Amino acid sequence: MELEFLGTGSGQPSKFRNVASIALKLLDERNAVWLFDVGEATQHQILQTTIRPRKIEKIFISHLHGDHIFGLPGLLSSRSFQGADKSEPLTIYGPKGLKSFVQTALRVSDTHLSYPVHYVEIEVGTIFEDETFRVVAAPLKHRIEAWGFRVEEKAHPGELLIDKVKADQIPAGPVYGRLKAGETVTLDDGRVVNGQDYLGPAQPGRVVTFILDTLPNDQAKILAQGADVLVHESTYGQSKEESKLARAHGHSTSRDAAHLALDSHVGKLVLVHISARYIGPLLKKFISDVKHLFPNTYVARDFDVVDVPFKKEQHGTK
Amino acid sequence: MELEFLGTGSGQPSKFRNVASIALKLLDERNAVWLFDVGEATQHQILQTTIRPRKIEKIFISHLHGDHIFGLPGLLSSRSFQGADKSEPLTIYGPKGLKSFVQTALRVSDTHLSYPVHYVEIEVGTIFEDETFRVVAAPLKHRIEAWGFRVEEKAHPGELLIDKVKADQIPAGPVYGRLKAGETVTLDDGRVVNGQDYLGPAQPGRVVTFILDTLPNDQAKILAQGADVLVHESTYGQSKEESKLARAHGHSTSRDAAHLALDSHVGKLVLVHISARYIGPLLKKFISDVKHLFPNTYVARDFDVVDVPFKKEQHGTK
Ligand SMILES: [Zn+2]
Ligand SMILES: [Zn+2]
Repeated sequence: MELEFLGTGSGQPSKFRNVASIALKLLDERNAVWLFDVGEATQHQILQTTIRPRKIEKIFISHLHGDHIFGLPGLLSSRSFQGADKSEPLTIYGPKGLKSFVQTALRVSDTHLSYPVHYVEIEVGTIFEDETFRVVAAPLKHRIEAWGFRVEEKAHPGELLIDKVKADQIPAGPVYGRLKAGETVTLDDGRVVNGQDYLGPAQPGRVVTFILDTLPNDQAKILAQGADVLVHESTYGQSKEESKLARAHGHSTSRDAAHLALDSHVGKLVLVHISARYIGPLLKKFISDVKHLFPNTYVARDFDVVDVPFKKEQHGTK
Repeated sequence: MELEFLGTGSGQPSKFRNVASIALKLLDERNAVWLFDVGEATQHQILQTTIRPRKIEKIFISHLHGDHIFGLPGLLSSRSFQGADKSEPLTIYGPKGLKSFVQTALRVSDTHLSYPVHYVEIEVGTIFEDETFRVVAAPLKHRIEAWGFRVEEKAHPGELLIDKVKADQIPAGPVYGRLKAGETVTLDDGRVVNGQDYLGPAQPGRVVTFILDTLPNDQAKILAQGADVLVHESTYGQSKEESKLARAHGHSTSRDAAHLALDSHVGKLVLVHISARYIGPLLKKFISDVKHLFPNTYVARDFDVVDVPFKKEQHGTK
């Protein structure tokens, strides 16, 4: 599980940062990539990476401002052009209005996609769940309807303690698979054994939270609670003047993000949606100011890849 | 008058060519830039040039395929973001449906432009004319409604023949300006002189023709007649197999473009909308094949700038 930052800027593209898009790469977990927001030229950014558009399984749109959605029609078209077929559907989660934007663009341009697209209008709560992942949405506070997302990986079952299995002289064979699945099994010699007794501790799944364009708010705290990685917008830095600008435009400062990270006990804070004003010495100050409040903060640049590690305690038991 | 090629690819962006957009830079002529088609990330390409979005006065859209229009909402938004004001309107000429695409994108994204946009639905004939330029549109043959454009600069009046003025002992002063304007003037000494007698030959205006996505057709010939520069799509090269592909997709080959250039007696042929397949040796062959048919052909790359010179005869008289 990795994050790849495709666009870390705000409002409009600059030479150094494209508009918003983040890939959550779940290649090991589900052979898929999820995108969070698709600003203009996201498909161009993807061209510079190893991401294959056909692998994009889900797209989550935080809100409908142009810098978060104008890349969607082009990305969908190119995914089709590149031969995604009927067996490779795409689901797009977004606010009301997104479907009409995308469908108008496709209709006007006479684009006929080669794969099905499902649109899900976001409502508060669980918007997706299967055996391995759950995604929860909660409303944030921006100039228009805006959503934060919490992606929860489900716990990985513990590994089969092969030494213990052998010590108890359970003969190798398909029974190992059943024990690993936690089943109770009757052996050929009549013994009844419980797989749970032969499993190491389950490994809690990882949590990544996305808080894009928003003013500080309590819903964000719920979404961020205990996250391994919190991806947070930080359009502005920490001065009084910057703070005023943030408030005026419905945005957060790096102080807001750091406070949320502290309050929510997250493992790592990654800042995105950085105003183009922060370059050179201003960017240096921006970074050191926020690290002063929350040391494990990373200010993302376009094309940065950030690993989402399992919790440290778990690594210890491996 | 210069052409700057912002996107010379076809269908979808590739690493080397962006999707369609061409700037006609009329900075000396009217302190303005005109765009022909606005594929996705045209604003990103513009960021790498000296073009200022505020200077973009007119946009001409050849047809509504995504690779020719998906950059429009973002470009309009950024032009606003960058402070274009009420005195800097923009006129967009395009097929029916374009306005609904742009307005849906702006409405859904809650974008309120700081300047007025005028939409002109293209009909055959003159779609724009003022003292210095005329633009003529004619229907082409693509999979959907598609238009070609002929941009005609009006003739430049001849220069004041200063040697002749002096030889006739006309005293310097504001009278020179009136003579240059071709007026008849009564001098202080009572002589009546006609400005026309003191002007060099008028310089015919230049003509640039844009034939984007199309099958070969007769309307293109009318638009291209005697053009100084013919910008023509050439999605494919000249082999039989390529020709079949071109026909199947409603496109032209470089042979089609060269034949039009020959038949229409154009000065220079510039090819765009090149399929991504043409790189390395294939591109070399593509170029040499077309130059064999029409030697003054240039296969444009992204960011190339091509001057549109006055007719050679005129340079001779300067
Ligand atoms: Zn934004
Ligand atoms: Zn095209």
